[in-house]
Amino acid sequence: MKAKLDALKHQLMISNDLESAAALLFWDQSTYMPPGGATARARQSALLSRMAHETFVDPQVGKLLDELRPYEESLPYDSDDASLIRVARREYERKTQVPADLVAETTSHFYALHGIWAEARPKNDFAAVQPHLEKTLELSKRWAECFPDHDHIADPLISTWDYGMKAESIRQIFSELREALVPLVQAIRNKADIDDSCLEGYFPEALQQDFGLRVIKDFGYDFERGRQDKTAHPYMIKFSLGDVRITTRFNEARLSDALFSTLHESGHAMYEQGINPAYEGTPLAGGTSAGVHESQSRLWENIVGRSRGFWEHYYPILRDTFPEQLQGVDVESFYRAINKVKPSLIRVEADEVTYNLHVMIRFDLELQMLEGKLAIRDLPEAWNARYTSDLGVTPSSNQNGCMQDVHWFDSFIGGAFQGYTLGNIMSAQFYEAALEAHPSLPEDIRYGQFDTLRGWLTEHIYQHGSKYTAPELIERVTGKPLMIAPYIRYLQQKYGELYSL
Amino acid sequence: MKAKLDALKHQLMISNDLESAAALLFWDQSTYMPPGGATARARQSALLSRMAHETFVDPQVGKLLDELRPYEESLPYDSDDASLIRVARREYERKTQVPADLVAETTSHFYALHGIWAEARPKNDFAAVQPHLEKTLELSKRWAECFPDHDHIADPLISTWDYGMKAESIRQIFSELREALVPLVQAIRNKADIDDSCLEGYFPEALQQDFGLRVIKDFGYDFERGRQDKTAHPYMIKFSLGDVRITTRFNEARLSDALFSTLHESGHAMYEQGINPAYEGTPLAGGTSAGVHESQSRLWENIVGRSRGFWEHYYPILRDTFPEQLQGVDVESFYRAINKVKPSLIRVEADEVTYNLHVMIRFDLELQMLEGKLAIRDLPEAWNARYTSDLGVTPSSNQNGCMQDVHWFDSFIGGAFQGYTLGNIMSAQFYEAALEAHPSLPEDIRYGQFDTLRGWLTEHIYQHGSKYTAPELIERVTGKPLMIAPYIRYLQQKYGELYSL
Repeated sequence: MKAKLDALKHQLMISNDLESAAALLFWDQSTYMPPGGATARARQSALLSRMAHETFVDPQVGKLLDELRPYEESLPYDSDDASLIRVARREYERKTQVPADLVAETTSHFYALHGIWAEARPKNDFAAVQPHLEKTLELSKRWAECFPDHDHIADPLISTWDYGMKAESIRQIFSELREALVPLVQAIRNKADIDDSCLEGYFPEALQQDFGLRVIKDFGYDFERGRQDKTAHPYMIKFSLGDVRITTRFNEARLSDALFSTLHESGHAMYEQGINPAYEGTPLAGGTSAGVHESQSRLWENIVGRSRGFWEHYYPILRDTFPEQLQGVDVESFYRAINKVKPSLIRVEADEVTYNLHVMIRFDLELQMLEGKLAIRDLPEAWNARYTSDLGVTPSSNQNGCMQDVHWFDSFIGGAFQGYTLGNIMSAQFYEAALEAHPSLPEDIRYGQFDTLRGWLTEHIYQHGSKYTAPELIERVTGKPLMIAPYIRYLQQKYGELYSL
Repeated sequence: MKAKLDALKHQLMISNDLESAAALLFWDQSTYMPPGGATARARQSALLSRMAHETFVDPQVGKLLDELRPYEESLPYDSDDASLIRVARREYERKTQVPADLVAETTSHFYALHGIWAEARPKNDFAAVQPHLEKTLELSKRWAECFPDHDHIADPLISTWDYGMKAESIRQIFSELREALVPLVQAIRNKADIDDSCLEGYFPEALQQDFGLRVIKDFGYDFERGRQDKTAHPYMIKFSLGDVRITTRFNEARLSDALFSTLHESGHAMYEQGINPAYEGTPLAGGTSAGVHESQSRLWENIVGRSRGFWEHYYPILRDTFPEQLQGVDVESFYRAINKVKPSLIRVEADEVTYNLHVMIRFDLELQMLEGKLAIRDLPEAWNARYTSDLGVTPSSNQNGCMQDVHWFDSFIGGAFQGYTLGNIMSAQFYEAALEAHPSLPEDIRYGQFDTLRGWLTEHIYQHGSKYTAPELIERVTGKPLMIAPYIRYLQQKYGELYSL
């Protein structure tokens, strides 16, 4: 059995290494590659991704997984070996379920559509993307139908990003969350706007970068095993457990953009850096779901990084960094500015409270499209109607409406969006559990001390990688299933106080 | 035949793309990778290199090459298709001749020895490397013996770097060159030292970089298809014909180091950038030999970049860049400083004239070791004796003697060194031919105009990639075989004038 397990690990490691090389090609493409490299790079990336896929779905892997089943069943569920075999089998089954032809058709469709969207968006030309988006919907359905054992057509897609989650339960959770959020947003609307003009001005890139790096170093992001570079869109990427990088972009006219993106990506990266090194090269060596990953980025960005205690420590340092720009701005004004709630049209610019309404609108629309209840041609109208009713703002065009995001134009309809709000919900539930274990956390944060928090997260979440599914992990860590109550409490308390509700 | 040729190109392209991905992993490792990435990176690089090799030596490639022979023979020698098949076959035969076991043994030996050398060198500990260097010699011989059809044991090694060259003819050329160089060095020794103190001082990195980039942009290095980054050792690297990068290192205490390294690497890079784009992904898409490659780097670095005319144009710009540091230094003093001849112990710091003596010493010692006439244990003594007799300087230790270079400690004894001097010789022969076609070249250079020179090099050398062997190329371009006369003329004229000989 040892030999078979080693053979399995060896094959998975090769697949992992090819995937990691493909990841480096992507990273280089978005950071330093000169434009002339694009054609060959696309070909080289596709080759490595295909080889990684073929190595993973090799029938030999399936045979080994079958032969290892008795060994797996002889071990405790949460032993490393049993978990490795279990998670590898899950991945193997997911990857082998979809015919290679459909994989190829999907890949080339999204590759082409990405370009069409990029051209049509500035022209506000929904007609140009409509037939292609119809194809996206068709492919999303065909892809989902490869997994016949589902309650809802969206479930196989959701399961790809958030294994263990289903459309129906998410719909239920989101519906409860909306019931709490809509009145909160409404109450804030009735209050005077917060003045956030202190965030506008001229903030030199190098100074922004220094400050951001200082904070995430304090958080515990390990620069011996990571680095930060600039890209058009911020992201976290991993080449091995010893090399987990983040990227950001700087807006010299607005102080908060790069800062909170840096804190956000560092949360993703610390999760990956905290995984048990023994899992290197196996399917256990990655965050367990999109939702749990997002819970870690949002916890560090929002629960920590937008808290009053955090800024009691860091604001004096920030003001030393930008003495002229922040002249006359006290910590309380700054704290209020970075937490201003204001319904808007663009998801990626949304505040902590209204952000979830953006996500839920899309999630609902995705389900309706997959269910055949909403045709692509009617999407702009449905989108605008929901923004008007849920957020009280109406897009002036599709450009800031249903064409604003690359989502749907470079991946499936269904699967990716729910993770953003699931992450917010989980972040509060995890933080409450951490707080119960360590009531001193708010005090630590006030002193710029994060070891206890990161230590707790490492012990309970990070180190396990993908060993537990998101529902298993939540249950283990908090003793309860996924619940919105902690998140509602967090929002109501923070924003009730901020807006004197 | 078309289908077979396409099948061959497809397989070669896959091998090329895996090799290019491995190259990117190396580039990242030496530029931006955090230390924690090293372990996984070594594994991932080895995987890609192995896969690239296996793809190239796949018996299917051999079969296609056999089947394509009649087609190749039906075409003119210099047609693209015939050349592709011919050069691919040469590479295939070279790569399949060596047993996989020996390849693996060699790779792991050099990997280990590199570390041993790095540790032993600062301690001046030749005893620590001696047994391993004996192993290097044994591996070099065994490797060469895989190619039984040779006149000299070094020929298969030389052929790997400089296809078409042989030990005997190189020995002949080098011997003639030495006869001309030794009296020249001796005559210069009898003259007063040039004062090059203007090159010492404090020259901020960013300013050095700006100036260097400006020059190579003028040369015609295409930044749409390349970029420059910092590494411990400067090099040129290619990921595709659309992405040919260079690296450098900055010494803020000495103005000339990064500058001439930048010009040097840009010469290598312009060669690769100038290759016919139709060759992309095939064995034709690379410089044809180490010597020809070096001829291009040395031509731009020395014949152009260390010429008086060049500095008549660029020195005013350089002095504007470093007004305080170069205060009171006129163009003639600067020109003399960057061309100071002074026998020294370290090859990579050597001037244009004595550089070749370093190379020839090593080449001779390599042949003696391979012939069994010089034992490894006697190498330090032999090295020091030759430095004393040829250069008039005696190493005070092995650290600045036979252990100074990583060569021999990370690759074979034999094969790599001759290219440096062959390149110098060729650079003058090529430049004379260019000058015959375009007598205005020195005047162009005086105005910072390089289009004619680069255009001529592109037409006669660059575009052909590896289509012609070095001897074929020299004959085609200059109408003559490799000759040292142009190089001797160049050195005698330039340094005769400089030192009033």
